[in-house]
Amino acid sequence: MQFDLITTDPSGARAGTITTAHGTIQTPIFMPVGTVGSVKAVTQEQLRTDVNAQIILGNTYHLYLRPGTDVLKQAGGLHKFNGWERPILTDSGGYQVFSLAANRKIKEEGVLFQSHIDGSRHLFTPENVMDIQRTIGADIVMAFDECPPYPSEYAYAKRSMELTHRWLDRCIKRLGETSPEYGHEQTLFPIVQGSTYKDLRKISAEAIASRNCAGNAIGGLSVGEPEAEMYEMCGLVTELLPVEKPRYLMGVGTPWNILNNIELGIDMFDCVMPTRNGRNGMLFTWQGVINIRNKKWATDFSPLDEQNPCTASQNYSKAYVRHLFIAGEILGMTLASIHNLCFYLELVKVAREQILQGTYGSWKREVVPQLKTRL
Amino acid sequence: MQFDLITTDPSGARAGTITTAHGTIQTPIFMPVGTVGSVKAVTQEQLRTDVNAQIILGNTYHLYLRPGTDVLKQAGGLHKFNGWERPILTDSGGYQVFSLAANRKIKEEGVLFQSHIDGSRHLFTPENVMDIQRTIGADIVMAFDECPPYPSEYAYAKRSMELTHRWLDRCIKRLGETSPEYGHEQTLFPIVQGSTYKDLRKISAEAIASRNCAGNAIGGLSVGEPEAEMYEMCGLVTELLPVEKPRYLMGVGTPWNILNNIELGIDMFDCVMPTRNGRNGMLFTWQGVINIRNKKWATDFSPLDEQNPCTASQNYSKAYVRHLFIAGEILGMTLASIHNLCFYLELVKVAREQILQGTYGSWKREVVPQLKTRL
Repeated sequence: MQFDLITTDPSGARAGTITTAHGTIQTPIFMPVGTVGSVKAVTQEQLRTDVNAQIILGNTYHLYLRPGTDVLKQAGGLHKFNGWERPILTDSGGYQVFSLAANRKIKEEGVLFQSHIDGSRHLFTPENVMDIQRTIGADIVMAFDECPPYPSEYAYAKRSMELTHRWLDRCIKRLGETSPEYGHEQTLFPIVQGSTYKDLRKISAEAIASRNCAGNAIGGLSVGEPEAEMYEMCGLVTELLPVEKPRYLMGVGTPWNILNNIELGIDMFDCVMPTRNGRNGMLFTWQGVINIRNKKWATDFSPLDEQNPCTASQNYSKAYVRHLFIAGEILGMTLASIHNLCFYLELVKVAREQILQGTYGSWKREVVPQLKTRL
Repeated sequence: MQFDLITTDPSGARAGTITTAHGTIQTPIFMPVGTVGSVKAVTQEQLRTDVNAQIILGNTYHLYLRPGTDVLKQAGGLHKFNGWERPILTDSGGYQVFSLAANRKIKEEGVLFQSHIDGSRHLFTPENVMDIQRTIGADIVMAFDECPPYPSEYAYAKRSMELTHRWLDRCIKRLGETSPEYGHEQTLFPIVQGSTYKDLRKISAEAIASRNCAGNAIGGLSVGEPEAEMYEMCGLVTELLPVEKPRYLMGVGTPWNILNNIELGIDMFDCVMPTRNGRNGMLFTWQGVINIRNKKWATDFSPLDEQNPCTASQNYSKAYVRHLFIAGEILGMTLASIHNLCFYLELVKVAREQILQGTYGSWKREVVPQLKTRL
């Protein structure tokens, strides 16, 4: 994997490219979440053509449970299994083990947990999580971390962070001892933790930077803390992470979260918000946020979003999509998901253009209030 | 509307074209069902490009309740509302009033019923059902009929059929007194009833033929009667319906039902089976019927169906689609629906080619056993 930092805007926002074995990614980038190998309610053709996704994310926890590594290995990896030939990033399962699984027990060795699907017992260790991600075959793989909840006691956050750092070294070691299963390179990103404690975030950022990995991630944010704290932690960490490597803020967020964090020097984002909120009828647009179930759209026959270039936004009216939601039609969820994902990709595309022009800061201050408007 | 009968195969199967204000339809044809203005889980782009649907069906009962005629009128009709610019046929609501609505009360005037959605009370009459279909704006509109259940007592079936015939005359009168709301022609198809009684079917077919409408339909079949009875009734009726007009067998059916009824002289079909069964993981193919949830497909990485030309069948493996169903992903329902609809359209397309070659009968006898095979 190669990262080329093209420019840093006066605001601090960065534009670059990430080159992987499955293609090049223009940063800053948003990565649609394809939890079990499917970006929910969207076909791979729609992802390519309508959404223009450059990279998607898969969840190790979910893929390990279903379809399982046996199937993925026989398929030749996730790219072959789901027919997505562009880059893929997989998380490490750390977050899901803590948010979804039952009866989890954290030990030095790893995490014992029960599947949320059938209650079966499993152990995730830094080593087997690397092995699983080898079998999934993502271009970018994440270190196994503990993601502490918000709020966490200082002592807990510190112990957890230190465990994450020890696990990181085991991840690096295991990945170094194993080879890609499908011939293409896989690149490890370690994860900065430390909850909302500045000194811990600083220690963690320095520890992570010292491992000299090809890219770095920030985890444990957007888990319930006030937005101001997220921005404070993120700004503090990006100052310590190496400039010449991409920075990935995990699980973030709203359109304005993304624009504000780009200004803090973040290059990569993922979030379920465009798809999950889309399935509930919430649409993000340049004009603001739409609840498409609202009666006010019942006879608005204008396109779902004239500014958004995808077929979902252009070929269907607000009134029709509202009708689909009120009638409980799956097509409503599909169109809203495509619209939102396309909007998120447009958002980072326009952000990149502003960065390349050196006008990011003023542009961002202008658009953020509009993006937050409730229409 | 114009019907051109191009040829009748020695078997009795017919090939023709139906020309409407929204385009030409090659017959025999299968019409995907778009109940509330959406073919479930499929976008209009997928319907055009992947499924190659030539005409879709809308349900008057559902569209009347949601979004309602006010919205449809303001939209400029269903074509404008859902963005489907090819032909549309709407049923009359008769079948749904009897299968879905609560507390229905049949009177000479019409049917009093309660909405299955909110219990609200409504009255359908031949006159207002024509008015509603004027507002929906379909190219082909169906007469308001009573669809008796199977089995029905002879006396009931006879009274019901006679009521349907009286209602037909009121439909014809009303449609003659009103004009299309959006400038394009709307063509009425009356419906033959008579349950499974040969003499009633004969009386009904003659009565319907005598009205000299531009096309004719057969209703009240595939409602639980043995397949042999369906074929017997259908064959009896098609012998009495005018040769030079298209014949539409409502709500039928499996791929083999369609091929057998084509041989009996049917030109048009609709059925929820490809989409409803698709959403449950049942796939129709030239090789037979697949339950994609079956464990045997877990590591079958061959395309969903190599013979089916749509992206759903070509770009996704059986193993992947099975995984989507097991994991409860919406994408599984979408891909299975597109696959099945594309297959149904391929089925009638190949049937038409065989008819044009004069080889329909032997071809049909060869493929039907294969189509029925459980894979």
